[in-house]
Amino acid sequence: MRDVFVIGVGMTTFGKHSDRSLRNLGFEACLNALKDAGITPGEIEAGYCGNALGPALQGETGVGQNVFWEVGIKGVPVVNVENACASGSTALREAWMAISGGHYEMVIVAGVEKTVMPKGTPLSVGAGELETKLGDIFPGYFALIAQKHMEKYGTTKEQMAKISVKNHFNGTLNPYSQFQKPLTMEEVLNSLMIAYPITLYSCCPNSDGAAAVILCSGERARRVKKQSIRIAASALTSGTYDSQREFASWEVEQRAARQAYEMASLGPKDVHVVEVHDAFTISEIIHYEGLGLCPPGEGGRLIDEGTTELTGRIPVNPSGGLLAKGHPVGASGVAQVVEIVWQLRDEAGKRQVKNARVGLAQIMGGNKEGDTKACTIHILVRD
Amino acid sequence: MRDVFVIGVGMTTFGKHSDRSLRNLGFEACLNALKDAGITPGEIEAGYCGNALGPALQGETGVGQNVFWEVGIKGVPVVNVENACASGSTALREAWMAISGGHYEMVIVAGVEKTVMPKGTPLSVGAGELETKLGDIFPGYFALIAQKHMEKYGTTKEQMAKISVKNHFNGTLNPYSQFQKPLTMEEVLNSLMIAYPITLYSCCPNSDGAAAVILCSGERARRVKKQSIRIAASALTSGTYDSQREFASWEVEQRAARQAYEMASLGPKDVHVVEVHDAFTISEIIHYEGLGLCPPGEGGRLIDEGTTELTGRIPVNPSGGLLAKGHPVGASGVAQVVEIVWQLRDEAGKRQVKNARVGLAQIMGGNKEGDTKACTIHILVRD
Repeated sequence: MRDVFVIGVGMTTFGKHSDRSLRNLGFEACLNALKDAGITPGEIEAGYCGNALGPALQGETGVGQNVFWEVGIKGVPVVNVENACASGSTALREAWMAISGGHYEMVIVAGVEKTVMPKGTPLSVGAGELETKLGDIFPGYFALIAQKHMEKYGTTKEQMAKISVKNHFNGTLNPYSQFQKPLTMEEVLNSLMIAYPITLYSCCPNSDGAAAVILCSGERARRVKKQSIRIAASALTSGTYDSQREFASWEVEQRAARQAYEMASLGPKDVHVVEVHDAFTISEIIHYEGLGLCPPGEGGRLIDEGTTELTGRIPVNPSGGLLAKGHPVGASGVAQVVEIVWQLRDEAGKRQVKNARVGLAQIMGGNKEGDTKACTIHILVRD
Repeated sequence: MRDVFVIGVGMTTFGKHSDRSLRNLGFEACLNALKDAGITPGEIEAGYCGNALGPALQGETGVGQNVFWEVGIKGVPVVNVENACASGSTALREAWMAISGGHYEMVIVAGVEKTVMPKGTPLSVGAGELETKLGDIFPGYFALIAQKHMEKYGTTKEQMAKISVKNHFNGTLNPYSQFQKPLTMEEVLNSLMIAYPITLYSCCPNSDGAAAVILCSGERARRVKKQSIRIAASALTSGTYDSQREFASWEVEQRAARQAYEMASLGPKDVHVVEVHDAFTISEIIHYEGLGLCPPGEGGRLIDEGTTELTGRIPVNPSGGLLAKGHPVGASGVAQVVEIVWQLRDEAGKRQVKNARVGLAQIMGGNKEGDTKACTIHILVRD
């Protein structure tokens, strides 16, 4: 299997882009990535596009073709990938597989989304109408998870709130972030109660946005001016129906982490910067544990100790994460990798993690109907 | 690049399955494919699922996970692929790439669809609301193509009708076919005019159904009892906006055909049985030309001479094609490969093509907004 490198990244600001189409958002991200890599559209041999909600919300299929055509990438194989919140990262993994397996030298990956829910409609991924009406939607599900984690490990509302405070602070340092205002712990705790213990500022927003990365083989990467970043691991798992009996952890994530660390021949202690799927504050705490950044049940302690702050030993979500940067579903997984690449290239500006040479991006999707549909973990290395 | 083999195939009957869910249809197809291969769900290392309309029509995402879980395939990487009518065949190609590149030994591919359009709503793939209201939907688009082909090459309504007669006859020999009744040329010509020259029986139906195939590496294939069928070529192209100025051919298909023949080191004359994307009768005639089964403009002559009938030199759509077997969008591309495998294994019953050792499956999707979004061609060989 050949090494695969990221040689260009780009994204739009995340937020509300009601006046822009999916393809227009994708266009900007792809153009930025092409410019960043210093290559022309004609050098791209294939395109992968992650999008979760376009067919349902915008009545748009073939989103990838629409986006890539806009930027002048034509004629090449284009594949649209849907894996809920992991749509973008799964698209990236397909591109990685294709290059590492020798099928292409240079591939573009885009993630695009406009999460414009019809008024009064909760975002629901693959859940039946009955479950949705009963309140089995994301905040409800994550509230159950949070309650279980509190009961089992003594995790506190204050610890969860600190996740939001940290990520919103990081967001103020990221010009691409949807939210640009710091929050206090009191503001998070006292914001509107959505589903106990989850308050409004414990939830990520619905967002619009796009992100893109350009991957290539090692041989091709050597001819690129930019510092190229190696993809040391790419793991994708799905649930097993049995893997979430415990409800205070995600076995599907633990399994993906084991696979990714083994593939990269690295461990949690070797990682310098992390982006995780903090759709809710409790998620980030559980991801600390799932990724082995701390033992099970000690995620709360980790945030208390400041370990995952920008200045801590292992900064998590320097970009602001989903909580502050925003969550355009199919774009988030790609945007995480964009952030990791900026960090590893020392281009992350005010939120730069010092001496970051190994980064990890984790995202999961479709936490409904028994278990998680997809969890991806990518480990990136600046050699 | 390693050789990849099809070792198991299965499908549901195509037709109206209003009482069955996407996952239930997919379950049956996958179970049949697993049984056919003589393997257990636990041997599957990854799953790919082609589905085009589930998110928009059934509000269902993560279709692949839902389907594979039903059949006992759990924990493994699952990827949902959308490429309009080429969704299933693109999923198959992703699986082929993954195995040939050395990532997996054994992969399942499913295509599932329920094409239940809300009453009065025309099937429209990615077209804007305005275009749809103006009648720029599939029958209208293909009517323009047909008129151009008639004008340019003298193709007749009778020749187009013969395509429908041939495929509906073949459908009567296929127990999986939605339509089981032969049609006369008069019946096709005199059926309801949809968009001149396209009549009702010149169109494929909207259908529900699922199909599945199991792919594996050469090493693994040797330990399987069934005759395994080699995938000699897998090509995927997209349009270029410029590639359809002529309107009486699809450059995107011609390009895919060139790539596929080159990959297989075979030419049109080496192919014994073909399945093409006969969404409309004119399509099959143009596919004859696009695939090089005859020179440009001579597709009408080919059907006149009976060359593509079951008993002809190069039978096309022995399964009944989309016209008779039906067209559950995301499933059709996989079902074509199921048919080719049955033909190459000499298991196609009454519609068996004699001495078929090389088969070709062609499908394309998203013929809107300037050009085709995806065209796949697979060449399969019984070594």
